[in-house]
Amino acid sequence: MNIKEKSIDELKEISKNLRETILNTVSKNGGHLSSPIGAVDLIVGMHYVFDVKKDPFIFDVSHQAYAHKLLTDREDKFDTLRQFGGISGYTKPKESEYDYFVAGHSSTSISLAVGAAKAIELKKEQRVPIAFIGDGSMSAGMVYEALNELGDKKYHVVIILNDNEMSIAKPIGAISKYLSKKMAENSYQRFRKFTERILEHFPESASYMAKKMEDWLKLITPGMLFEELGIDYIGPIDGHNLEEIIETLKVAKEFNGPVIVHAQTLKGKGYSKAEGYYENWHGVGPFDLQSGEPLKKKSGKNATALFSDALLSLAKKYDNVVGVTAAMPSGTGLKKCMDKFPERFWDVAIAEQHAVTSMAALAKEGFKPYIAIYSTFLQRAYDQVIHDCCLMALPVVFAIDRAGIVGEDGETHQGLFDISYLRTLPNMTLFAPRDERSMKYAVEFAYNMKTPCAFRYPRGNFLDSSKYPAKEYELGKSQLLKEGKDILFLGYGNGVGRACETYEILKDNLDPAILDLVFAKPLDEEMLLELSKEYKKWYIFSDSVKTGGIYSAVLEFLNDNGIKDIELESFEYDDIFIEHGNTKEVEKSLELLPEQLAKKVMDSNS
Amino acid sequence: MNIKEKSIDELKEISKNLRETILNTVSKNGGHLSSPIGAVDLIVGMHYVFDVKKDPFIFDVSHQAYAHKLLTDREDKFDTLRQFGGISGYTKPKESEYDYFVAGHSSTSISLAVGAAKAIELKKEQRVPIAFIGDGSMSAGMVYEALNELGDKKYHVVIILNDNEMSIAKPIGAISKYLSKKMAENSYQRFRKFTERILEHFPESASYMAKKMEDWLKLITPGMLFEELGIDYIGPIDGHNLEEIIETLKVAKEFNGPVIVHAQTLKGKGYSKAEGYYENWHGVGPFDLQSGEPLKKKSGKNATALFSDALLSLAKKYDNVVGVTAAMPSGTGLKKCMDKFPERFWDVAIAEQHAVTSMAALAKEGFKPYIAIYSTFLQRAYDQVIHDCCLMALPVVFAIDRAGIVGEDGETHQGLFDISYLRTLPNMTLFAPRDERSMKYAVEFAYNMKTPCAFRYPRGNFLDSSKYPAKEYELGKSQLLKEGKDILFLGYGNGVGRACETYEILKDNLDPAILDLVFAKPLDEEMLLELSKEYKKWYIFSDSVKTGGIYSAVLEFLNDNGIKDIELESFEYDDIFIEHGNTKEVEKSLELLPEQLAKKVMDSNS
Repeated sequence: MNIKEKSIDELKEISKNLRETILNTVSKNGGHLSSPIGAVDLIVGMHYVFDVKKDPFIFDVSHQAYAHKLLTDREDKFDTLRQFGGISGYTKPKESEYDYFVAGHSSTSISLAVGAAKAIELKKEQRVPIAFIGDGSMSAGMVYEALNELGDKKYHVVIILNDNEMSIAKPIGAISKYLSKKMAENSYQRFRKFTERILEHFPESASYMAKKMEDWLKLITPGMLFEELGIDYIGPIDGHNLEEIIETLKVAKEFNGPVIVHAQTLKGKGYSKAEGYYENWHGVGPFDLQSGEPLKKKSGKNATALFSDALLSLAKKYDNVVGVTAAMPSGTGLKKCMDKFPERFWDVAIAEQHAVTSMAALAKEGFKPYIAIYSTFLQRAYDQVIHDCCLMALPVVFAIDRAGIVGEDGETHQGLFDISYLRTLPNMTLFAPRDERSMKYAVEFAYNMKTPCAFRYPRGNFLDSSKYPAKEYELGKSQLLKEGKDILFLGYGNGVGRACETYEILKDNLDPAILDLVFAKPLDEEMLLELSKEYKKWYIFSDSVKTGGIYSAVLEFLNDNGIKDIELESFEYDDIFIEHGNTKEVEKSLELLPEQLAKKVMDSNS
Repeated sequence: MNIKEKSIDELKEISKNLRETILNTVSKNGGHLSSPIGAVDLIVGMHYVFDVKKDPFIFDVSHQAYAHKLLTDREDKFDTLRQFGGISGYTKPKESEYDYFVAGHSSTSISLAVGAAKAIELKKEQRVPIAFIGDGSMSAGMVYEALNELGDKKYHVVIILNDNEMSIAKPIGAISKYLSKKMAENSYQRFRKFTERILEHFPESASYMAKKMEDWLKLITPGMLFEELGIDYIGPIDGHNLEEIIETLKVAKEFNGPVIVHAQTLKGKGYSKAEGYYENWHGVGPFDLQSGEPLKKKSGKNATALFSDALLSLAKKYDNVVGVTAAMPSGTGLKKCMDKFPERFWDVAIAEQHAVTSMAALAKEGFKPYIAIYSTFLQRAYDQVIHDCCLMALPVVFAIDRAGIVGEDGETHQGLFDISYLRTLPNMTLFAPRDERSMKYAVEFAYNMKTPCAFRYPRGNFLDSSKYPAKEYELGKSQLLKEGKDILFLGYGNGVGRACETYEILKDNLDPAILDLVFAKPLDEEMLLELSKEYKKWYIFSDSVKTGGIYSAVLEFLNDNGIKDIELESFEYDDIFIEHGNTKEVEKSLELLPEQLAKKVMDSNS
């Protein structure tokens, strides 16, 4: 389909059809909903005005880019959205040459556009990078770093600011307030008339005044902040009015410098149940299109809910417990605490660096801060963890959600590296709960730590280790769940359940002991030394990368203690990025399902 | 000394004395110069108006805080500045209760102030956090994330913006241009007079117009950008005029919300040789106060200069080589390339995240980007390394300077963790040169990599491995420098020289083989397998932490290959933050000098 040859009416029809396809697919497969259907008209306009074959189309946190996928060679595969082996929920160059970059983390688009523009300039090509960014992504520091260079270097970059005033949760922060201010249209018009009359009175200084007035007039448009940074501003425009979109983007295309097109859209536009709602319709599971009801009821409490409950109990008990999320109140479960104690729990918007460092100050002031964050997003604040928390040895708690495989969100969101990148930091303590009871212990144990600590837990429900009730946590102490013969299963976090489930499958043939490591740092050296005497074959179960992970930790322990006679195998992740799909299917592809692991263990012990 | 009881004249005398003490000490010990003497008057004013016993004094990249140290209980120890066991060059709570936070990385102060303000509000205390921040620190994204919350929550925070228009290098970026705009004072005055006359003509709408005019007038002050973010602005003031400083800070103290005091200062103020110079006088070694000449001539080329030369040669050869620094053109040696090829090498200001992601786009466009960065500052862009480089498998090169112990800058600047945090990333290749020739090979080898890679090198000169000339690099291939008997020294990067120097000391007693690992990832498994047959005692030499470092890498290799009969010891760093001081003295305290290592090896082999 050559969209460039279509009439406005045909384009409107295309938008309508795109929305329908997206709605149908997401209602079946789950996925992001309000964001991609809200962005449809802007994306249609973008494809109409710019040339996807040469202009870099750069989508920020690209879950809004479904329409772009449908417009570029993936319509027939779109029903596999977010399924294992199917279309990714984010842009992905491996999937299509029209996807410029991977983008699952927010606020990278303007930096990428600046880099692309520099490259285009050096190559003397005629191409325009377009950064498509939601207002929610505007709070992260990266955006400002990129605008700072862009406003200085004046590259021709078009930024489409898709402002649905919603991000994932409610809009937070000064920038957001700034963007949602009504345009000073009326005052502007009145002022212009007024100046015209003035000029009649002072014809001698007309040219000076005209210039000055123009400068001042600029200042009252909502784009002032961007203009001050040296970036031209057009807007706000109606992001659902295709005529206005196309006309504006054509103007932007002809600019010779950086320009931001501020478009106001309605998140969920086109699906009445989702229109105007904040977080509920951001990411969804399969649902019934008519009723809006989810198709599957979730059974049992997921790890996030367990954390949420445990933290709320703690917050009721101790006044000095505070907590923060970076734009993920529901995702991290912090919302319950925010609702109950709005003074002590809050959202700083997408601003992980600031979240961590500001909480370090709260720790210094005697508070006990819990930072609820996904493993993959904590990467954004790595230096702040080191420089502002560990170096100061402050009692900040990192509650790391989405540790391990996260399923349909895929490679940008997997929680693979946190053990490796945190274990190497002095003053850091690492542990991991494995069920409801141990989550409570973990949250309580963290409260009493006087130095930084982090505990991790998976997306969804914990694997089943219920046969072996957890005991209270003691620093650096593991818990031996069962004794056995020759073989030892070392589990960490959700790996304990994996070890237990594996054991259930092979228990007629083998009798491994099962240890819940509880602490990845410090390791329980006393217990491990003891066990090394009796058990000579060790298997590690942990949802994390081998390299630098639990595998490394145990190897370092064995070598430090001169233990040479242990056969050690790790069932952690190999050194690869892990694709999207249903978690069980992904784990199956990695041969990490309990039945697969049981077979491996039996094969190597037969 | 109770500074609060002094007269203005006495305060001026205090400022003068502080400058002298700083100049004298830095000329003897080396240290930061232009920044701390430029900040003296503001710090004196700050101590006069606020109460250091209760108000959090938060210094950004705190090397400017020498005057604060002298004013708070460290005058008699100040001659030990930056020496091993002496006063740190940065604020450090372990050193004094008046140092609120450690700060060696830039742009953390406003986040800390926001956190402190929140804590103060919760505790219902009467204290005011003051963030003291230079204009150079204003480019980092963290600042914007913090302002975003501050402007929204309206905490009472005083930000003193010490604007010397210089940061470390030349000011870069839109924000910097913005700050250095002349105040619109004249236009303002003229406009006010003008409006008065207008109002005479339109008395009926006077009140409406007055209001509107006031709004517009606000907009033409340089504080507009901050005002737009909801933060009140005062300035610019003369940052060397104590009356003006004190008067303004008193006003700021009485505000009930966030306020930024914009003070213009002269970097190097009070030492004529340094006044007005950019990078030369930022950080210095010991020098002669009269002549300004350095006291010690440096001998030989340091690793940074070797990198600089090698990259320049490469850039002459290949048009597609580009490079970036985050505000460290001299520090990283990129300046030579920037001078020669200003189109292809540039400075993005303190903006590590943006530096990495924008260069990822350049790689995607077919360029070969070299990011020259200190090990400790790369931590700021960890997520961008993962999400925008490794996941995309793009050929971005990280040239990691200041790897290992950096000497007098101390714990915030040590390059300890890079191997650990990078080794865990899929698609990443890690290697390290050890001398002039291998630096050339490293830079050239990186050019041919099709995926992300990083090579590291130390501050200062390489240790001596000149007996064994380096050969060209081949992916994953180590270089056996000499064969030996029973014992194997495994060196990585500067560790190779350390191994060689250790060997020179013990060679009459022992005959170790010496291997230059060259690659930390992938390891040269073939060579290591071969060597494991002959050499049963291995020692690792690398300037990096053990945890997750080369030690882990080798242990993982041994276990993966079922090799059980190797005794392995690592001479890497233990799991601690490492203090400041002369590098040799610090290494001595860690027992890492070649003579100490030789003794250890001999003791364990006697």
